[in-house]
Amino acid sequence: MTQLEVAKQGGISPQMKRVAEQEGLDVEQLRQRIEKGVVVIPANTNHRNLVPAGIGQGLRTKVNANIGTSSDYGTPESELAKLRIAIEAGADAVMDLSTGGDIPGLRRAMVAASSVAIGTVPIYQAGLEAIEKYEAIVKMTPDGIFSVIEEQCRDGVDFITVHCGVTQSSIARLKRQGRVADVVSRGGSFLIGWMLYNQRENPLYEQYDRLLEIAREHDVTLSLGDGMRPGSLSDATDRPQLDELITLGELVDRARDAGVQVMVEGPGHLPLNQIEANVQVQKTICRGAPFYVLGPLVTDIGAGYDHITGAIGGAIAAAAGADFLCYVTPAEHLSLPDAEDVRQGVIASRIAAHAADIVKGVPGAAERDRQMSIARKKLDWPEQARLSLDPERSRRVHAEHASAGTACSMCGKYCAMALMEKYLGVSTPRC
Amino acid sequence: MTQLEVAKQGGISPQMKRVAEQEGLDVEQLRQRIEKGVVVIPANTNHRNLVPAGIGQGLRTKVNANIGTSSDYGTPESELAKLRIAIEAGADAVMDLSTGGDIPGLRRAMVAASSVAIGTVPIYQAGLEAIEKYEAIVKMTPDGIFSVIEEQCRDGVDFITVHCGVTQSSIARLKRQGRVADVVSRGGSFLIGWMLYNQRENPLYEQYDRLLEIAREHDVTLSLGDGMRPGSLSDATDRPQLDELITLGELVDRARDAGVQVMVEGPGHLPLNQIEANVQVQKTICRGAPFYVLGPLVTDIGAGYDHITGAIGGAIAAAAGADFLCYVTPAEHLSLPDAEDVRQGVIASRIAAHAADIVKGVPGAAERDRQMSIARKKLDWPEQARLSLDPERSRRVHAEHASAGTACSMCGKYCAMALMEKYLGVSTPRC
Repeated sequence: MTQLEVAKQGGISPQMKRVAEQEGLDVEQLRQRIEKGVVVIPANTNHRNLVPAGIGQGLRTKVNANIGTSSDYGTPESELAKLRIAIEAGADAVMDLSTGGDIPGLRRAMVAASSVAIGTVPIYQAGLEAIEKYEAIVKMTPDGIFSVIEEQCRDGVDFITVHCGVTQSSIARLKRQGRVADVVSRGGSFLIGWMLYNQRENPLYEQYDRLLEIAREHDVTLSLGDGMRPGSLSDATDRPQLDELITLGELVDRARDAGVQVMVEGPGHLPLNQIEANVQVQKTICRGAPFYVLGPLVTDIGAGYDHITGAIGGAIAAAAGADFLCYVTPAEHLSLPDAEDVRQGVIASRIAAHAADIVKGVPGAAERDRQMSIARKKLDWPEQARLSLDPERSRRVHAEHASAGTACSMCGKYCAMALMEKYLGVSTPRC
Repeated sequence: MTQLEVAKQGGISPQMKRVAEQEGLDVEQLRQRIEKGVVVIPANTNHRNLVPAGIGQGLRTKVNANIGTSSDYGTPESELAKLRIAIEAGADAVMDLSTGGDIPGLRRAMVAASSVAIGTVPIYQAGLEAIEKYEAIVKMTPDGIFSVIEEQCRDGVDFITVHCGVTQSSIARLKRQGRVADVVSRGGSFLIGWMLYNQRENPLYEQYDRLLEIAREHDVTLSLGDGMRPGSLSDATDRPQLDELITLGELVDRARDAGVQVMVEGPGHLPLNQIEANVQVQKTICRGAPFYVLGPLVTDIGAGYDHITGAIGGAIAAAAGADFLCYVTPAEHLSLPDAEDVRQGVIASRIAAHAADIVKGVPGAAERDRQMSIARKKLDWPEQARLSLDPERSRRVHAEHASAGTACSMCGKYCAMALMEKYLGVSTPRC
């Protein structure tokens, strides 16, 4: 049975217990949210060493790191190293987006090595197998696609991105729209290319029940991908994007009815003042399904620093109700990320997630900041390092430019904290 | 005459012409905003090589970089190098916050070397001179403070932070409040220490007219400092902070009446959902005076990455109407920033400022993103680098992991842009 099926029957799974404990939440309350579909616990029955995490309403905002080979770079070793680094930096999930080398072998190694949920985009492997067999992505067959999905679900993948909402109708709307950047979703482009070439409907939409059956068998959480997501601020919140979202909302209902856990993916590139609207519309259209956003990036010109651009958008999105942030690395738009890019990307998204959790009222979030402020006032450096998001870096930077006094080298002898303690005395915080 | 006095008389200065040109604005419209006091042009009559920039309503959001020595680190050479790097990275203003070494000598060298506005916090030098002469900051004399202010204004400094709103009344409110982090403003702590020790009112408040006279003489823009700014999310938007802001609002009126350009400084540490309120309250209380915010930082636990924490807050603040962002570097809360920290800090703030300018409708801001998206769709890499905030880094990262094809190494042969061009054809953007 899936987590959703257990919850519907009023049951409490070991995964629910674990998640409730981590989140400081009553387990029955958590069960009710899973039953409603506003929380998911991606946990494939074949992913043995998984420490399950919940995603959705009232829970800590989670962070995903995308890794994997491309046709140009990446080896099993480099990508497994990135997996370790992502988990060390605090990622709650990792997606293997490999499109080069032995994809199944690397995926199995990742599932075996990962304590966090592993996600994939099966259409990549399906497209590459079609190239091997028939020399073109557009020669994929529906059976070929579903056979890859089955294989990946059997391998223990906890969630899969499936672009089920890319339909002939949304493609027609895309053409009428006249976009600047058309389609930037790689999986979306594989499917749209196939649909245009073959003049057929999206098999993941047409045979959605077949997909649900496979997902249900291994309790794989569907992450309904947004093939029409805007890849430019100019294309944000437009008609093809919303057409696809409406379809995804309908598919959310069908997944829940079938006992399959489901979340929904979102943009992408959005002007800062459209982010809240995007979250609100997703929440109404998809009846509160967990929202998994990529960034969002609040400008198109941040290449080299898009982890920062994405952290701005991610913080605003999460504060507005997004539940799951896909990181963006400094390499975005330029190259495959290396290990350091992965680390930077995870930390930037964790800052965004935590800043949002404070205003979401997630248990314990604001208290950690309060403890940090107390340690800061006391000039207690070991405690400040312990409470910071990256203790090792915090220690190193402080030590590199040590101060002759007890403060840091920015203010040296003229530290406001020290001066105030001397003249104002020790105050008793009331908050 | 000051820019404000010229504007009041209906005149157009060379500085106004230059700023109007840079901003793509009608110069008479700009003059009206300067007359109203909602735009300032910090431009000391003694800063000969200044390329003036405007700050305020309807203009591009500006970025300031804080540099300068501390008692522990920094030499004239290191700080002049940081000045160059800050300007190269795109800073619109630089503040010299030196508290170590030959402060006047370094300041003069900075003014001479800088094409952007230079700001200072004169109370630092005043405090350090008091230590030299009387062995304690709290032994500063009002005449000593004003003599330093005069010296700095004569030296060509374009704007000075003066904590005129720290009054005995606000200190009383601070004590009743019971804060977690009390006072984190260094200049504020110098003055508050002095006021508590001497049991006297703030001389910058008591003798505000004297300050206005000095500022008027050289057209130095006052930046009314927030000595009570929250240094912890727990202390955000509290009573001492707002008491001080109300006083600053009154002092804005008096500065404008005296023909002195004035802006107002703001937090600091703020939860994400309090930023907009802070901007709105500043704008009403200070009758639209340009708002200069430090960060704001949306969490207290980002040490090592506070340029990101500050970019999140800065983008939200600027989108809500803040006009001038003071950067925060990755070294914040840990040490004096080095040259690379300065660069990172400026870029992070520029991302925040630009993301906000897009939604503020600043002329040309959104168009640059649109051009970038067009270049991206064409896989035109030189043009993408040219349009990015840091062209050199954009080129380097892309080249380091070059792709065998025309795309980047993230998607390699399976680039969505390339696939779409093949199957969807070339579309004509309507927006």
